[in-house]
Amino acid sequence: MEMLTIQDVGEQGLLKRLQAFCPPEMVGDDAAVLTPLPERLLVVTTDVLVEHVHFSPLTTPPISVGWRAVAANLSDLAAMGALPLGITVGLGAPSTTSVDWVEDLYRGMVDCLQRYGTVIVGGDICRSPVISVAITAFGQVQPRGVIRRSTALPGDVILVTGGHGASRAGLELLLHPEMGCELAAIDRATLIRAHQYPQPRLDVVGKLPHPEALRLSSPRASGMNQSTREALISGMDSSDGLADAVLQICRASGVGARLDRSALPIHPALKTWKSAETAVQWTLYGGEDFELVLCLPLEMAQSLVGELGGAAAIVGAITPDPDVRLIDPTGVQPDEILSLDRGFQHF
Amino acid sequence: MEMLTIQDVGEQGLLKRLQAFCPPEMVGDDAAVLTPLPERLLVVTTDVLVEHVHFSPLTTPPISVGWRAVAANLSDLAAMGALPLGITVGLGAPSTTSVDWVEDLYRGMVDCLQRYGTVIVGGDICRSPVISVAITAFGQVQPRGVIRRSTALPGDVILVTGGHGASRAGLELLLHPEMGCELAAIDRATLIRAHQYPQPRLDVVGKLPHPEALRLSSPRASGMNQSTREALISGMDSSDGLADAVLQICRASGVGARLDRSALPIHPALKTWKSAETAVQWTLYGGEDFELVLCLPLEMAQSLVGELGGAAAIVGAITPDPDVRLIDPTGVQPDEILSLDRGFQHF
Repeated sequence: MEMLTIQDVGEQGLLKRLQAFCPPEMVGDDAAVLTPLPERLLVVTTDVLVEHVHFSPLTTPPISVGWRAVAANLSDLAAMGALPLGITVGLGAPSTTSVDWVEDLYRGMVDCLQRYGTVIVGGDICRSPVISVAITAFGQVQPRGVIRRSTALPGDVILVTGGHGASRAGLELLLHPEMGCELAAIDRATLIRAHQYPQPRLDVVGKLPHPEALRLSSPRASGMNQSTREALISGMDSSDGLADAVLQICRASGVGARLDRSALPIHPALKTWKSAETAVQWTLYGGEDFELVLCLPLEMAQSLVGELGGAAAIVGAITPDPDVRLIDPTGVQPDEILSLDRGFQHF
Repeated sequence: MEMLTIQDVGEQGLLKRLQAFCPPEMVGDDAAVLTPLPERLLVVTTDVLVEHVHFSPLTTPPISVGWRAVAANLSDLAAMGALPLGITVGLGAPSTTSVDWVEDLYRGMVDCLQRYGTVIVGGDICRSPVISVAITAFGQVQPRGVIRRSTALPGDVILVTGGHGASRAGLELLLHPEMGCELAAIDRATLIRAHQYPQPRLDVVGKLPHPEALRLSSPRASGMNQSTREALISGMDSSDGLADAVLQICRASGVGARLDRSALPIHPALKTWKSAETAVQWTLYGGEDFELVLCLPLEMAQSLVGELGGAAAIVGAITPDPDVRLIDPTGVQPDEILSLDRGFQHF
């Protein structure tokens, strides 16, 4: 049987099929209309993914491309303390692309969106020599609930909401299927799943202390402007790696950090597979784990770790000294100063 | 002197340069934070433009590519009755693209945004074998001010906010510079400008009757649901052509229309250049004029035409008969039934 392509169904035919992935009331006007909750700020983030740059058929079937694209954007909303209102999707694709591929892409997006209670509200499709997916996500947040990178203070501890390195390990297994024979089948599947279907931590947003409570208990009430004083939690997501997140927060806040090597949230399956050093490297620099890295007072962090469970952990603390140091409390490894140079460059 | 490319400055270097086009408070977090006015609905629209599909170096310098991309999105907001809050920009580009080209693109976007009092609030850049620009625009509108396609009623007149065909004519002059020698230099420049720097009609939104006034004076108060009853003005923009707009509104509203050939808002420079028949064709099907096509009661339309001035005109009326007919009141031309088949297919 011949594969049905975009060219076969035409732009209108494809649009019609893709509209099945949107709520019907969002379709049919020049723009979608959404009803935010009262007195919320609007949070907006956007990402572009390009075939062969951000994904390849080898490692990511179209359902996973869609899931990952949505997860990355929802993770950015979670990192701001926001809950999602919806996303728009701008798809560029060659006219020879199979309709099945495109529908699987949207299926993956909607699977992820549904899990987090949100929807595709609009989009555009157009011919392009390469498949590209541009997603913009909008969310809403109470003014005092906004989480920024720039408000970390010395004395805060650094909380990580879950394990790291699994996405990087899953990618390795997908690129080199002959590797990891020593892994249990379930661990192997877990690591691959972590790469293909990462979970943005929107669940954390609902578990953060209520903004009003934050405000009343804030020890930062003196000597700072209104917006700084009220931001008791600072942070971002770890999409570009745990080390990158800590470094970015420190740079934006004009502070440094101390990370405890023995407290790093290394994914358990990594420990049984890779050397301790590789496991640490992937945990710090692997990227795409889409956890949150939050800086907040110790007591509040302990309570949040308890509520989150799983691999959530306190991994270090913010320091006045601007360096970001990886410390080994056992003294076996020398201290290491981390830098942004090891981050990912897209060009 | 060597041309500086994206590869030369790297992703971080390019991002730094592009951040100069955003308000500083929008940069540096996982997402931008915006403050909508109280009790507004959020309106969202998105468009993807791809080099050689939607623009080419021959007809559109990068400043114009940026302007047009923004204008198209702002026009969609205007078509919903909304005023802009901001846009995000997702840029894909080969690493050999000149930095000047990219900066001119952003300059064009910001020129258009500034004119309408709004800004770039976020974005993403990534490597791609072809230049693509994905823009998402967000606006806000009072719940009773939303303009939809689906609420036109027989008895409404059809108001067009300005002249049509100029963008199509400008494109012709850009593609065939040897043409149009008979045009006055100023007309030639006007037509080219209409193509390269179209004006979204956000100014019209501020001149529409106040939503509360609409509600009180509505003759549609019986037999319809709440949302339909309150929507006294329906419409969309004419980005895909004036005929397409009327046809889409009629299809969405389950009505038909009568367009008066002698009332069509043919751009004056077209009349002196092209045959009457070509001028009518470009006016109906040319596209990218980014005017608004509004359906509303006669008296209100007359008052709005007076307020808008220029080429704003009443061009026809909505009919219960589902056909869309082009009528020649002089009887010289036979009636014509318009259909969607002549619209633009992107694949």
